[in-house]
Amino acid sequence: KKRRKLSLDDFEKGILDSNISVLSQAITLVESNNPEHEKTAQALLQRILPKSGTSIRIGITGVPGAGKSTLIENMGCMLCEMGHRVAILAVDPSSSVTGGSILGDKTRMENLVKQPNAFIRPSPSGGSLGGVGRKSRETMLLCEAAGYDVILVETVGVGQNEVTVRSMVDFYLLIMLSGAGDELQGMKKGVIEIADLLAVNKADGNNIQPARLAAAEYGRVLEFLQPATQGWKTKATTCSAFERPTLEDLWKIILEFVETTHASGAHDGRRKDQSIQWMHSMIEEELRNRFLRSEKIQQLLPDIEHQVANNTLPATSAVYQIMQEI
Amino acid sequence: KKRRKLSLDDFEKGILDSNISVLSQAITLVESNNPEHEKTAQALLQRILPKSGTSIRIGITGVPGAGKSTLIENMGCMLCEMGHRVAILAVDPSSSVTGGSILGDKTRMENLVKQPNAFIRPSPSGGSLGGVGRKSRETMLLCEAAGYDVILVETVGVGQNEVTVRSMVDFYLLIMLSGAGDELQGMKKGVIEIADLLAVNKADGNNIQPARLAAAEYGRVLEFLQPATQGWKTKATTCSAFERPTLEDLWKIILEFVETTHASGAHDGRRKDQSIQWMHSMIEEELRNRFLRSEKIQQLLPDIEHQVANNTLPATSAVYQIMQEI
Repeated sequence: KKRRKLSLDDFEKGILDSNISVLSQAITLVESNNPEHEKTAQALLQRILPKSGTSIRIGITGVPGAGKSTLIENMGCMLCEMGHRVAILAVDPSSSVTGGSILGDKTRMENLVKQPNAFIRPSPSGGSLGGVGRKSRETMLLCEAAGYDVILVETVGVGQNEVTVRSMVDFYLLIMLSGAGDELQGMKKGVIEIADLLAVNKADGNNIQPARLAAAEYGRVLEFLQPATQGWKTKATTCSAFERPTLEDLWKIILEFVETTHASGAHDGRRKDQSIQWMHSMIEEELRNRFLRSEKIQQLLPDIEHQVANNTLPATSAVYQIMQEI
Repeated sequence: KKRRKLSLDDFEKGILDSNISVLSQAITLVESNNPEHEKTAQALLQRILPKSGTSIRIGITGVPGAGKSTLIENMGCMLCEMGHRVAILAVDPSSSVTGGSILGDKTRMENLVKQPNAFIRPSPSGGSLGGVGRKSRETMLLCEAAGYDVILVETVGVGQNEVTVRSMVDFYLLIMLSGAGDELQGMKKGVIEIADLLAVNKADGNNIQPARLAAAEYGRVLEFLQPATQGWKTKATTCSAFERPTLEDLWKIILEFVETTHASGAHDGRRKDQSIQWMHSMIEEELRNRFLRSEKIQQLLPDIEHQVANNTLPATSAVYQIMQEI
């Protein structure tokens, strides 16, 4: 059975009415690389933009094995039971390579999918302007317009993703494990410094004591690092995805963060900066892509790179040479 | 008395003969924003490039008050006495604003200036392609061709400079003070993670014990961070600019680093990556500048930024709109 093609009015009304089917189709539109779809998507975003921006945007990352998925599922269920409407998105640029997706297997979150107030959307694949980052960001705006007041953005703790996600959320939660830094081997440089909260997960049973020690140790490390958010001291704590009270404690810290940053103006300032930065990084990406895609540059570049790497051509001369071609 | 204008051959010969007057003039040429000078400078660099790359390149940073200048002066004197030829350069993009320069007041290093084997060059001012970073990098190449086998690149521990300097040196030394992280307040995020060695300075007199404690604490912090150089464990130690044996110890660590990274291939790999990265970052800067300088964009951008910041125009739409103008 073929769906009726929705008009811009249909899309707008459906989203503002929190119609999940329309929201899903709108996200598909936003994720499409088809130029016609992109045009419609932008017109739709323009319309819903004034209704967006109202959620608490939370980025969640951690190394594989830290128990992110279970924690997100149980936290999502808890928030729904508290009366929130929760959207769970994923940012995983690598999925476009592997064909997989971190939230792809929705059946993993079997309790959360049963919650009528939860909306789960797996990672989009890459593609044109802005790639996965743009798509996730615009999906977030659509979810907000549809009335979701908490957005959880999941990412894996390796690669470039963290910086992308940090630039689209208010609060950044880093899920750790006890084990004195060993698990950081797989974690990208600087991830601790973009977090607003470090939570040592799996603090249950015999692991409570090691987890507390690890959190204390991370707390000391944080003393030596710059906080990620102006006016907020990044904390380290413990939690267990299976102990509801510990998830409630995490949520309390997040609410405290929201209150602090709203009062100080840091929240509004960051949101504005994020939008402008986002625009500029897309412009830079587009300039770079147009440059790298040009036939002349593709012919020239490998040989020039080789000469520069082997010290037979000064880098600045190489740049002059290349810039004459455009 | 007007100097005779040097030919390209004069420049090349003078530099390879370690003629300090010619080297100084060549650096002035490299620092010039005059297009004719730039052309000559690039031709000269092309010639001397095969003779460059032979030094140990060391970046040194620390917050103001950490005692960088004294440490650099005394270390420079020590290295000269050991038989090295030492060039001391400064990277301080802010100097183009203040008109000052971190090494500007050469008289501060009164012992070092007397060393015939030391060459001190204050920070250039900014300007065209690549700015201060390009000029310092090319000055480094000229010094190497002139036979300087240790290059110390000083920078202040705030702003963008550290990343620029990290991308041009082999080894990065971060000068700290005791005081449990307080001094990091003025230090940019991530600086610890680009260092190969943390040295807690002023470890003399009553301050030896606090300095040792601080170094031990930093050592524990480093356990939680990714090392800056593949195959090298970033260390934390103490030193005093006034205690020669502690400077000898720093030097031993640097030599150990050099040996390790040469053996593993990390040194060669990094040098090649740095050259290619340098070229690409200049290309990106040039693309961005050409874009931002265009009249149409300068007219459009403020209003578009305002709309994006205030959620009345989607960022992606803004990018489409802007990209149509070029």
